[in-house]
Parts: sequence; structure tokens; C-alpha cells
Amino acid sequence: MIRRLAVVGLGLLGGSIAKASRQRGLAREVVAVGRRQESLAAALSDGVVERATTDLAAGVAGADFVVLATPVATIEALVPKVWEAATDGAIITDVGSTKGPIVRTAERLAAGRPLAFVGSHPMAGSEVAGYRAARADLFEGALVIVTPTDATDRLGLKRVSEFWEALGARVSQMDPEQHDRAVAAVSHLPHLVAYALVEAVARMDPSSFGVAARGFKDTTRIATSDARLWREIFLTNRAALGPALAAFKASLAELERLVSEGDAVALEETLDRIRTMRRRLE
Amino acid sequence: MIRRLAVVGLGLLGGSIAKASRQRGLAREVVAVGRRQESLAAALSDGVVERATTDLAAGVAGADFVVLATPVATIEALVPKVWEAATDGAIITDVGSTKGPIVRTAERLAAGRPLAFVGSHPMAGSEVAGYRAARADLFEGALVIVTPTDATDRLGLKRVSEFWEALGARVSQMDPEQHDRAVAAVSHLPHLVAYALVEAVARMDPSSFGVAARGFKDTTRIATSDARLWREIFLTNRAALGPALAAFKASLAELERLVSEGDAVALEETLDRIRTMRRRLE
Repeated sequence: MIRRLAVVGLGLLGGSIAKASRQRGLAREVVAVGRRQESLAAALSDGVVERATTDLAAGVAGADFVVLATPVATIEALVPKVWEAATDGAIITDVGSTKGPIVRTAERLAAGRPLAFVGSHPMAGSEVAGYRAARADLFEGALVIVTPTDATDRLGLKRVSEFWEALGARVSQMDPEQHDRAVAAVSHLPHLVAYALVEAVARMDPSSFGVAARGFKDTTRIATSDARLWREIFLTNRAALGPALAAFKASLAELERLVSEGDAVALEETLDRIRTMRRRLE
Repeated sequence: MIRRLAVVGLGLLGGSIAKASRQRGLAREVVAVGRRQESLAAALSDGVVERATTDLAAGVAGADFVVLATPVATIEALVPKVWEAATDGAIITDVGSTKGPIVRTAERLAAGRPLAFVGSHPMAGSEVAGYRAARADLFEGALVIVTPTDATDRLGLKRVSEFWEALGARVSQMDPEQHDRAVAAVSHLPHLVAYALVEAVARMDPSSFGVAARGFKDTTRIATSDARLWREIFLTNRAALGPALAAFKASLAELERLVSEGDAVALEETLDRIRTMRRRLE
């Protein structure tokens, strides 16, 4: 049981954390820290939080559990401020989709003042954003990756894992850098590719959109995601995105070569091998 | 009302055409021409066809409406044989997803013997294939593109359009070459890209598949499509696929440049512009 939960950032993820914690009775008191008065007022009137403030230090003070749920580009800069304002013994986690830089910043600070920081990445995004889209069941059945290192406080890791499980999530552990490479491959790269596919059709002949069927729509659905969020994700994880893009371009070039050479046998074998891998995910 | 409908090829599309025609009473008699005894026997025992044969000439003889529904790579070679076997006045269409070469072959033959050929492309594929997946409702609400040219018989065009509408489809007209460019952009390119995405993850680190969420699955769902079918589609339409791939690579390179230069403003503007285009398709 958390005495005071501080949720910093009240968008889709922060709002859903506050709502789910309230519904499941995980915290005696929930405090929201946000920039938009509109979202803070909505959370207060929804009865989701006891207190709402735009002042980070005031919101974090006295909390025994802090979740940083602002856009990923601002989390790294927020960590030192939270470190200063937080109460001794506080456990801190975040929801950033890129983990390496955030975790390294926290570990540098922990060498000076030993607060327990554990990086988290709930894989529960959505094409919709903002507090209005927040749902108490957003994490039910979702995968949350926590990213401890050798320096991570073991009790903090246990508490953070239990927190996500209490929200209905499955928790898995990865090294922060391994995490960043994995999400670059299966999340950030596909998003960039989906945006490029839509742009390519527009570049050739926008009237072709008229014959787009389910296949095109499925493949490019994630290109309807929030532009600011994805700008931040691409930029914070560009170190891992580069190699993922290189691997993709090599795979595409190989397929293109088989097509242009008309190598029917090798092309069908390759497509079938890929199809088998993809079907294992179903 | 069709007196005798010949369906050549009894896979997903041919089987669905036979089933839908039977259910909707579009033809007094349905004849299936196929290679697999198993599919032919199933269609007979389902009561979907009156006759089934592996002999193309025998199956097409006497039919007033012929649909070529074999894999796309074989349709072009089939057209001259059908031309020879078909009855005077027969109307012939096909379901090939690449139209230019097939339509040109038929027009060359029509100069010698005036049968009415109208190219069709029902956009009602699926990740599943074969007669067992065939459904009488496959074309309900689907888009069928018919591809007449200046040389196309007007009555034939009318009859073929009415046929698809009678199966529940919406019918749209395009020039064969324009069609091939459009489907290269919104169908063939996304398939090739989806295969390349799956291959790229495997190339980097297959364990990353473990964190694949809905976004990855949506984006790569079409990579579970039948390998033989898509080998044929890529190869028959490679002339139009080349420029589509070039446009895609240019779009991806532009996004990659914005990411690697860290140009947050231009990147967000670009993503937002693409997002707006994509949302119009919903």
C-alpha cells in the first residue's frame, strides 16, 4: 500500500495510472503534477486525485512513490529536480519509452543521494493521447518492461514490479540498453516505416489512397499516432534507431534484389521463411 | 442471368465466386476448372458447382461468362487457351492483381477473334488461401477495380460490372497501367515492407520479438500472407513496384535525415502532416 502516490504528467499514461490506482485502491492519496489546468481540474472533479498542482517540488514532497509520466523528452531533465524534491526513502519510476539515458542520469544522482529509481516502460501506448483518453484498464494484460541494472535497489525493483502487476500488467525485465535496441526494432522502426509508407503514396499519386484496402490501413495505422510524442521517441532513441534502420534497409534491399532479378524460387523461399517467423507471434 | 458460368481456378477467390454466385442465384449452371481434385470434389459435394473438370477447354466450352481466378502468374498464359476454347459471344474476366500484361494480351487476341475481355481486380484478398477459406460473402462491401481501355467492349464492361455488384462489391474503373501503379503503392509496396520489417528484427536479435506489441503486429500482419501468391504478385508487377520502392526509400531517407540531424521542429511538422493524410483514410 502506497501512502502518497505522486503522478507527474497527466496525459494518457499518467491519467490511466491515477485512475487505475484509485480504482484498485493502491494508494491512500494520489497527487497529480501537471502543466494543463484543464487536465488537473478534470482529475480532481473525477475524484481520481486528492490534490493537483503545477509545482513539481510541492507535488513530489512527501510522496513515497513517484511516477514520472511526462513526454519522454522531458523525463531525463526532470529526474534531477525530482531527486532534489523527493522525500528520503521514496521509490521513483517513469514510463519513458527510451530507457538508457534516463536510467544513467538516475544512477549518477543515486551515487550522491541514494533514492531508489527503477526505469519502466509500459507498452500500452495508443494512437490517442491526453488525459481524456486515460482509462483505468489501460494496463490490464499489457507488458511493462522494467530495466534494472547492477546498481538498482532490489527492494525498489520489487515494489515497482508489484505496482505494475497491481495495475494488471505483466512485468518483464531487461537491461536498459537491450531494451532500447529491442523497442527500436519492434516499435520505433515500424512507426518510422509506417510514416514513410504514407508519405511515399502521397509523393507518387495521392489518388492511389482511393484503392487502399485493409492491408494498407493495418500497416500504416500507427502513422496516426501523436506527432509530438513520436518526434520525441525517435529523437531520444536515435542511437538505437540508426542500426535498426540499417538492418531494415538491408532486408528490403535483399527482397528488392530477388524481385528485380526475377528469382522466383529464392523469393518464395524467403517470403515463406519470413511468414513462418511472423506467424509465431500470433 | 448467366446461363453457364465457368470459374477457372478454385482457390480463395474462385471458390468464393462460385459460392457467392450459387447463393445469389446468378448462374443457372456453374462449372469449375481446377487442378486439385480435392478442391473440385469439395465444390461438387458442397453443391456449389454442377460440374468440375481439370480440362480447361472442356470447362470453358459453352460458358457465356468465364472468370479466370488462377494465381496471377498463370493468368496471362491462360488467356490464349481460353480464347481458343471459349464460345462465340462469351464474356471473360479475371481476378489478377496486376492488370497491364493480362489486358494487353487479351486485346491482342481480340484483334483476331472479338471476344469481350474486361480485366478485374477484386480487392478482397486475405492472409488465408485456398478453397477451404472461400466464403460466399467475401465480396460484400469489397472494392473491385475493373480496368477497361478504349478497345474494351462496352456491353462486356457493363455485364462484368453488374456481375461484381451482384456479388455485393463496389465497382470502380481505372486504366490498367494506372491500376498497376496504384496497387504497387498501396498494396504491393506495403507487403514488401512488412516482410522486410520482420526480417530486420530477426536479423538484429530475434529475442526482440518478445516485446512486440499491437503496433508491430498490425504493421506486419500482411507478412503472414501466402508466399507463393505474393512471390507472383511482386514478380508480375515489378515494373510498377520499382518506382514505388524508390518513392518509399526517398520518404524514409528524408525522415531518417530529420531524426539524425535532430531537427525537432521539422520532424514534428512532417509527422503531423503525414498523420493528417493517414487519418483521412479512417
